[in-house]
Amino acid sequence: MLKVSQLWCWSLGATKMQKDFFSTKLPQEVFSLFGLFSPVSREKISLEQSFNRVLAEDLMAPQDLPGFPRATMDGYAVVSKDTFAASEAFPVWLKVVGEVRMGEIPKYDLQRGEAIKISTGGMLPQGADAVVMVEHTQIVDQDTIEVFKPVAPLQNIVLADEDFAKGELILPQGHRLRPQDIGILAAFGKQEVLVYKRPKVALISTGDEVIPIEQHPLPGQVRDINSYTLSALVEESGGVPLRMGIIKDDPKQLRTFCHEALDKADVVLISGGSSVGMRDFTLEVIRSLSGSEVLFHGIAVSPGKPTLLGKVGHKAIWGLPGQVTSAIVVFLIFVKKFIKWVGGERNFPLQEFRIVKAKMRINVPSVQGREDYLRVRVYREGDTFWAEPVFGKSGLINSLIRADGLVKIDLGKEGLYKDEEVEVILF
Amino acid sequence: MLKVSQLWCWSLGATKMQKDFFSTKLPQEVFSLFGLFSPVSREKISLEQSFNRVLAEDLMAPQDLPGFPRATMDGYAVVSKDTFAASEAFPVWLKVVGEVRMGEIPKYDLQRGEAIKISTGGMLPQGADAVVMVEHTQIVDQDTIEVFKPVAPLQNIVLADEDFAKGELILPQGHRLRPQDIGILAAFGKQEVLVYKRPKVALISTGDEVIPIEQHPLPGQVRDINSYTLSALVEESGGVPLRMGIIKDDPKQLRTFCHEALDKADVVLISGGSSVGMRDFTLEVIRSLSGSEVLFHGIAVSPGKPTLLGKVGHKAIWGLPGQVTSAIVVFLIFVKKFIKWVGGERNFPLQEFRIVKAKMRINVPSVQGREDYLRVRVYREGDTFWAEPVFGKSGLINSLIRADGLVKIDLGKEGLYKDEEVEVILF
Repeated sequence: MLKVSQLWCWSLGATKMQKDFFSTKLPQEVFSLFGLFSPVSREKISLEQSFNRVLAEDLMAPQDLPGFPRATMDGYAVVSKDTFAASEAFPVWLKVVGEVRMGEIPKYDLQRGEAIKISTGGMLPQGADAVVMVEHTQIVDQDTIEVFKPVAPLQNIVLADEDFAKGELILPQGHRLRPQDIGILAAFGKQEVLVYKRPKVALISTGDEVIPIEQHPLPGQVRDINSYTLSALVEESGGVPLRMGIIKDDPKQLRTFCHEALDKADVVLISGGSSVGMRDFTLEVIRSLSGSEVLFHGIAVSPGKPTLLGKVGHKAIWGLPGQVTSAIVVFLIFVKKFIKWVGGERNFPLQEFRIVKAKMRINVPSVQGREDYLRVRVYREGDTFWAEPVFGKSGLINSLIRADGLVKIDLGKEGLYKDEEVEVILF
Repeated sequence: MLKVSQLWCWSLGATKMQKDFFSTKLPQEVFSLFGLFSPVSREKISLEQSFNRVLAEDLMAPQDLPGFPRATMDGYAVVSKDTFAASEAFPVWLKVVGEVRMGEIPKYDLQRGEAIKISTGGMLPQGADAVVMVEHTQIVDQDTIEVFKPVAPLQNIVLADEDFAKGELILPQGHRLRPQDIGILAAFGKQEVLVYKRPKVALISTGDEVIPIEQHPLPGQVRDINSYTLSALVEESGGVPLRMGIIKDDPKQLRTFCHEALDKADVVLISGGSSVGMRDFTLEVIRSLSGSEVLFHGIAVSPGKPTLLGKVGHKAIWGLPGQVTSAIVVFLIFVKKFIKWVGGERNFPLQEFRIVKAKMRINVPSVQGREDYLRVRVYREGDTFWAEPVFGKSGLINSLIRADGLVKIDLGKEGLYKDEEVEVILF
């Protein structure tokens, strides 16, 4: 314990030790804090631009779909009763009285003993209640067909309201629009869609050693990897990245940048100065902003422990670890869901499934009392997916280049065994 | 056999029967034809815009990364030998001779018996070969620390070329850029990236019954669902959709539209008239274009059988089934990979893994000799993912709204058993 408290003294000063020690959160506690933040405002956009956007209202069917009874096969519209006795040996003969033209209301009402030629998608004529597939018929002459197989009532057709009935809920508020969802909006003639705005996410890079990418680094300096990596991650999460630039390890400058960022954006990400001093004053600067509250400072996750979340008015400031590997892990586990949450998304079936089950290739030890995220390469042998750890110091980005995803080692586990089944969260 | 050949006569005329019957392809044969098409041309774009774009050249490390030896922990740079005897009971005393400032070359060269304070990411001073973590030290006075634990040579540091060494291959041509890849490009100061252009994909909707979405359908008419759904799928595949509009069941008009589409785009998708006649003349129109070749007409996949692929010069024309459900299945199984192929992508680890293993909730029968794609809803109970079929006639889009993905039933299988493990290809 002595050694742990010493660490906290180093970084925070002894007077704050106790308070901040207890502000370390478990992952589940972090997620439960999301409810303190509301979604961004809404906007109307054109259907063409709505792919991957988040619905901001429940979508109900404004009318029946398809709106009229349709054939689902090529063949003949018939009265199903007429075909009940049909067989290969004793086909039924029907009189062909016309053809349904695509896109038009059929000109004939069907009578018993009659058939009307129809294509997939054609409107069923009055009097007909089924379609005989063309494969089950034979042309006898210009006006007559043989039917070899009976059809049941409603067979090979869809009813006017069978896809969606007027008033039915099609898609709920908070649903991210997939291609088929765009299709259903088109079907109902929705040229505009009410969606949540894409959350604006301001990115501040900090550190005396960090330089813009267009400069050539001197020994001791590194280019600003984080804000470019985080920009792409923000895009992937449905947000709009705003790169604010790089600041030195200077609380005054950080405070100015925070004010500006809170003005322009819904969420602020500070990718933390790697120096110890910087970590302190990120916390102090957030505390000093009016109306601010630090929700936590430290999470029981490795890598990613020094993460913090502050609330300033209704906006959020995240302090992320300075090492890019840690920053990416924290982003994928927490910040991505947070941006989606603020972006109004409430219904994540797919996101949850960007997971593949794999078997561990080797034993991996871990530390109890925190969630460990292991970088792994995934490959396939026959029906088995294998997860092979990609080791690498957390200051190195190459492990992330070689890896395909992350494996979580739960708080209570001492590690993973070879051949144990794990879930890989894919990049 | 009689019934099958009759179907072909119906749709193609008896003289072509034999030829086209044999042009039906197995899925594996379809993929093997992709090699006949070359990738689109390349362009230079800014790093900011390169997320999810496909690298058009091998990326080699232009210099060592990080470029100088760095601390990966907060603590003290030391000569590791000095600490070998350190223990809790008998700590080693070292003289603190200064501090490394972030982003600067250390001012001191370290001597035996000395330590220099350093933060994560700081440049290691000359003479030092390791960093002692601050947790393993105790301040004695202004100039002295106790070290409780030994460090090995190179511990808690990274070497100048440990992330990437100059000349090393970082990312291969054909790799789609992920957030961490953008980070590595930033690290090397790449403000511009050579990528493949996004393939342009022209979309032609056909059918006398199809009307633009801004019009109100009369009985027998439906709005143009397909070109909106396919636009979103093209976007998702990395292509640029060009909606050409709707044409009636008229070969002349289709021919004119094909010429225009081939002029503007790299790939043309015709989402097929649902009428039988239209299917014929899509084939005839493609055959009539100069320099054209029909690679196949019909695939052993359900839904999706009437799919065709033509090659006109170096460009591709796909004829997709008219029913939106079938069109989406064919797109996800074949066309998505084709667009990625034409877009230069060659290295699909993630795409392949957008799969979840699940157990079938119920028995599902199937037909041998073709690949069946079943729409399923996926849900989780504890550690088990369940796949529950979403039944629905193929003319209905609602099954796709309720489903999360597709399960393939292989050519040789008669169906799937309850509790059988399957792979779900997620939407």
